Amino acid sequence: MESVVTNLLSEVKKQGRVHLTEVESKEVLKAYHIKVSTGYVATDQDTAATVASWLGYPVAMKILSPDISHKSDVGGVRVNLDSPEAVRKAFSEIMQNVKLHKPGANIQGILVDQMAPEGVELVIGATFSRQFGHAVMFGLGGIFIEVAGDVAFRIVPLTREDALGMIQEIRGRKILGNFRGKPAVDVNTLADIMQKLSLLLTDHPEILEVDLNPVIATAAGAVVVDARMALGEPKRISKTLYSSEEIITGMKRIFSPAGIAVIGASSDPSKLGYSTVKNIIDGGYKGKIYPINPKAEEILGRKCYKSIQDVPDQVDVAVIVIPAKNVADAVKALGEKGVAGAIVISSGFAEIGNNELQRELVAKAIESKVRILGPNIFGIYYTPADLCATFCTPYTEKGPTALSCQSGGVGMAIIGYSRSHKMGVSSIVGVGNKCDVDEDDLIEFFGQDPNTKVIAMHVEDIKDGAAFVKAAQKVSKEKPIVALKAGATSLGERAAFSHTGALAGDDRIYSAAFAKAGIVRVSNLEELLDCARSISKLPVPKGENVLIVTGAGGLGVLLADACSRHQIQLMTLDKDLDEAFKKFIPPFGATGNPVDITGGEPPETYEATIRLALEDDRVDALILGYWHTLVTPPLVFAETVIRAKKAAEAVKAPKPIVASLSGDVEVERAATLLESHGVPAFPYSSEKAVVVLSALYRWARMAGKIKS
Amino acid sequence: MESVVTNLLSEVKKQGRVHLTEVESKEVLKAYHIKVSTGYVATDQDTAATVASWLGYPVAMKILSPDISHKSDVGGVRVNLDSPEAVRKAFSEIMQNVKLHKPGANIQGILVDQMAPEGVELVIGATFSRQFGHAVMFGLGGIFIEVAGDVAFRIVPLTREDALGMIQEIRGRKILGNFRGKPAVDVNTLADIMQKLSLLLTDHPEILEVDLNPVIATAAGAVVVDARMALGEPKRISKTLYSSEEIITGMKRIFSPAGIAVIGASSDPSKLGYSTVKNIIDGGYKGKIYPINPKAEEILGRKCYKSIQDVPDQVDVAVIVIPAKNVADAVKALGEKGVAGAIVISSGFAEIGNNELQRELVAKAIESKVRILGPNIFGIYYTPADLCATFCTPYTEKGPTALSCQSGGVGMAIIGYSRSHKMGVSSIVGVGNKCDVDEDDLIEFFGQDPNTKVIAMHVEDIKDGAAFVKAAQKVSKEKPIVALKAGATSLGERAAFSHTGALAGDDRIYSAAFAKAGIVRVSNLEELLDCARSISKLPVPKGENVLIVTGAGGLGVLLADACSRHQIQLMTLDKDLDEAFKKFIPPFGATGNPVDITGGEPPETYEATIRLALEDDRVDALILGYWHTLVTPPLVFAETVIRAKKAAEAVKAPKPIVASLSGDVEVERAATLLESHGVPAFPYSSEKAVVVLSALYRWARMAGKIKS
Repeated sequence: MESVVTNLLSEVKKQGRVHLTEVESKEVLKAYHIKVSTGYVATDQDTAATVASWLGYPVAMKILSPDISHKSDVGGVRVNLDSPEAVRKAFSEIMQNVKLHKPGANIQGILVDQMAPEGVELVIGATFSRQFGHAVMFGLGGIFIEVAGDVAFRIVPLTREDALGMIQEIRGRKILGNFRGKPAVDVNTLADIMQKLSLLLTDHPEILEVDLNPVIATAAGAVVVDARMALGEPKRISKTLYSSEEIITGMKRIFSPAGIAVIGASSDPSKLGYSTVKNIIDGGYKGKIYPINPKAEEILGRKCYKSIQDVPDQVDVAVIVIPAKNVADAVKALGEKGVAGAIVISSGFAEIGNNELQRELVAKAIESKVRILGPNIFGIYYTPADLCATFCTPYTEKGPTALSCQSGGVGMAIIGYSRSHKMGVSSIVGVGNKCDVDEDDLIEFFGQDPNTKVIAMHVEDIKDGAAFVKAAQKVSKEKPIVALKAGATSLGERAAFSHTGALAGDDRIYSAAFAKAGIVRVSNLEELLDCARSISKLPVPKGENVLIVTGAGGLGVLLADACSRHQIQLMTLDKDLDEAFKKFIPPFGATGNPVDITGGEPPETYEATIRLALEDDRVDALILGYWHTLVTPPLVFAETVIRAKKAAEAVKAPKPIVASLSGDVEVERAATLLESHGVPAFPYSSEKAVVVLSALYRWARMAGKIKS
Repeated sequence: MESVVTNLLSEVKKQGRVHLTEVESKEVLKAYHIKVSTGYVATDQDTAATVASWLGYPVAMKILSPDISHKSDVGGVRVNLDSPEAVRKAFSEIMQNVKLHKPGANIQGILVDQMAPEGVELVIGATFSRQFGHAVMFGLGGIFIEVAGDVAFRIVPLTREDALGMIQEIRGRKILGNFRGKPAVDVNTLADIMQKLSLLLTDHPEILEVDLNPVIATAAGAVVVDARMALGEPKRISKTLYSSEEIITGMKRIFSPAGIAVIGASSDPSKLGYSTVKNIIDGGYKGKIYPINPKAEEILGRKCYKSIQDVPDQVDVAVIVIPAKNVADAVKALGEKGVAGAIVISSGFAEIGNNELQRELVAKAIESKVRILGPNIFGIYYTPADLCATFCTPYTEKGPTALSCQSGGVGMAIIGYSRSHKMGVSSIVGVGNKCDVDEDDLIEFFGQDPNTKVIAMHVEDIKDGAAFVKAAQKVSKEKPIVALKAGATSLGERAAFSHTGALAGDDRIYSAAFAKAGIVRVSNLEELLDCARSISKLPVPKGENVLIVTGAGGLGVLLADACSRHQIQLMTLDKDLDEAFKKFIPPFGATGNPVDITGGEPPETYEATIRLALEDDRVDALILGYWHTLVTPPLVFAETVIRAKKAAEAVKAPKPIVASLSGDVEVERAATLLESHGVPAFPYSSEKAVVVLSALYRWARMAGKIKS
């Protein structure tokens, strides 16, 4: 099949064309065993009628011209023709229409085609971006796709789950099922077509855009009735220079250096070169610190060196805080000294339009084999090494979450939120202009880092999408990766010849790439930070059965609403389990889900119901709603939950528990207490607990931790 | 027209039917000058062919039977018949189909109908709920409506804005415009049809359900091709007992009493009757307090009375904290004493299934002309009267927001959040079982209350929807009303004969009612609380031109993303305004919107750009993004904003300003300072500032404050 397509494509290129005709596109599809409607090209009325009689009536007729992409728009399509007379008449009408609407078009004839069986009209397509390569699209056809934009995307290559997931994702999926008396369409054939298309694009990446529109699906299968393709150069952004091992070796030296130099260290407290040295010292770094400044003897009590070459010992990383124009030379010197990486705080590069200076820096870094973080960043924090290599204030609260951000502004919010919420972190990294080290390097490093259990990222753009997806796919199998993708950055020029291309909003391609990578996408900064702080506290759920136990009926309703917005499935209780809950709660309380134990209950009722939920194997995760009362005050509630959790975990595997606390300000202390015992808890909120649990679930589903 | 419809409907009722046939439904529509396709009923093939020749070919044919509602499902519809032969053949085929699929149906004949012109297929319908009466629906027809559920609802009676707003609201509205070369459809005619339908339902409320499906719309107008209607008893929940004046007079006495009694006062600190008296005293209440307890002489230093009758002076309100079974009698005694209202904290009524006891209480209240708050509530706070009539802790921070909640659990969250965020309130009210006083009474009272500027409500259900909408419509013209509607409460039985009925999810009807009432609906507790705290601080925007000025480019992008999610329109800057901003910011900063002044800038740059935005008449509202730097630390930023705001407000009308603060923990103090100067500010957040501004805008649009 390879050679058929290869020959056909080279013939098209030879003719200087980029668009394949319908007939050519269908030839390509046939080579990949995708079923297309059978047809022949006729150049006169009589041939058309003869062809129609071979095919059997009714037939469809469509103008065939390399100059005409949108055939309907020029009156070039007629359908449901059921006699030789009708075919002849249609032939001359189409020719007239086309001459009128598209004079001078090179007309190859009229394609006489089998009428597709009655079925559901779908569109399957593909588009290409420099970051992520090809993406396949699936959607309902006809006006649906154009009007409602109800489509799903996945990045090539497509797995079976990808293909079936796209079908599940569209709002109009109902129409594919048993609908209006029509039997359900054969979704397996649709998934086949998408996977075959994915294979075609992998084999022939120069096919940049595809529209199979319509594809007619029935219970018996699916057939492509019309097809268009466009060729081009599949230019990918690729920056792969280092192997996974090289990345990790370098990063380990950067994040846990035996010695750190500060190029541009200063004893003037108003300079970044001063605060950087001070922060490294104040942060409690135990390794060797080498201030570098040709004019100083000593800075902050540390011996100062004229140059990096003067340092007698091994240096693993250097922080650079000198003017932009001198940075490249400094990196060269680092290379000569055998320094693994440079944290370039200096600004004045691409972010202010100095692209040339940045290119020079990159060239020097590659040549010298020095990894560059930045430029234009606040620095990095890595608490396992007590390292605060930054001009901001030190932050030393240890914990399992690594955060990175592309914007320094967002970085400051991470530091402030962390301090305010006592969020333990393994690392906070600014990637800034990310001229070298970027998200995929960090994912590689944090992936193998035993001090990091969760990765949270603020991302504005991804450069080498393939490297990013590959690294994340590997790591997200075991560690949740949560990302906030700012929406305004465009993927740059993409062709828009196809419907698919027009529908492939950049944001949708990013979502598809994140899904492929197993990354949980969140909507805003507060969600990123809440998830960063809380997800690492939670065990992985075993299944989808989530239960709400609440002391406040009203809060239970709001939590249930939030679950339905965030794809959390509230389990239906078996009768025996429902009865078991009933035993513990007042007769006017409500079982079912939420279990409403009612407001006036003592700690014993909370304890009994929570233990029941945690110890019954059918419950996979628990959402608690608390109502501040005199009978069960906030801290008593917190202690009760902790006791119940401990007791249950003595006999059963831990389950994720999150809590929503409704009460006077004492609930804030209760939340802190709960959090320190592995129960993320949120005062005055009906949404946050659910958002966090939902992020955990979305990750666990993608990572294959939950059997569905 | 009245009499035609009245006669027709009474004829249908006389026959014991509830469903109108297509022909009858169309007669009703014609009486209201809604254009329907012309047709005649034929009972044999020849008549059918004759009718077809009168109408002109092609024609459609449809089975006519009071027993058949879904004609297509029984093979009862044929379209595009273009000859007498085709009509004859179709006649016999339809009859055969119907006999096969619906044996025994009473067949009145076959309706031979004009084929509708080619156009866009729409559905217009109506449904009925006991809370809100009729609602009209608008949506795209065909599979669209069933598959995507892309429909809009408005409560009857429909204004022109309602009708046009529904058309704007559907996702597929694009198809109504200039689409695929077809001219735009005549939306005015569609709005006419919806308003005429609204009038029909007002005149004949016994028409509970309507499906006009399809309505074919073209550039020249619209025609109803098929129609179905169902009759029933339009039972509304109505509890109107008091006039607006009576409500307000009563509420004024309840919220600002000259004397307050506590029925069930106690000197035992473990009793609610103790904490209630204590809170009234500790809250600083200046009026007279009368503990009532037959067994005590004095409680908390106040003279205690055996009964309410023993109190020498006027009592305006009584708090009741005695066992449920004694409450009705206590209310009777209050009535005899001339007390205006009772705050019934006692529980043990409908919330635990004691419906009878609650009915008794209501009967007694009506008889005694005593308004009842509750039962089963924590009480009420009204700060202008220094009144904390509750068993919870006192809360006395004065401010312009009145909050109510249907759930005590949510009430405790309101109190905790208020205290934690120092939110000034005029009132916090629990409505609990709301056997008498409910949201519309509160809206009436807070609407005229000079101490209240914003109303925020947690609502689980609405009982008398008409009273609620009427009160809110009046008040929301001047004061924002924000509501969190918990989604799980059903409207109870509604008929589901029509598509419309099936699509009218209870949540959608509530949204339609809130829209009619001018109420801003929010999604969760945190949004309700943030809006409650912040909206009152903001002036009303004059127009839709919103500008982002940010020191952190990354934060600006996230804020812009949030704006697009929350229907905030980022203005396009005129060239001169863009140039004016450019003068203040570094060459590598970005103008446009967001205006990115870049991170390293001093306070002067913030000040100059903020003043420019506030003093230029084209900017209507401002979103600030702050990035914590050494050059402009958090408190300096806050002071700068306050100074710029004051300077601008000396020469121009105030504009809404909200701020998102990214930085270390000092930003929390900056936020507090900004808030105290009328700038709602949110640390570590990219969403909240936009949510608050969006709520203000949504209100201002509905209240007609913004010319669009």
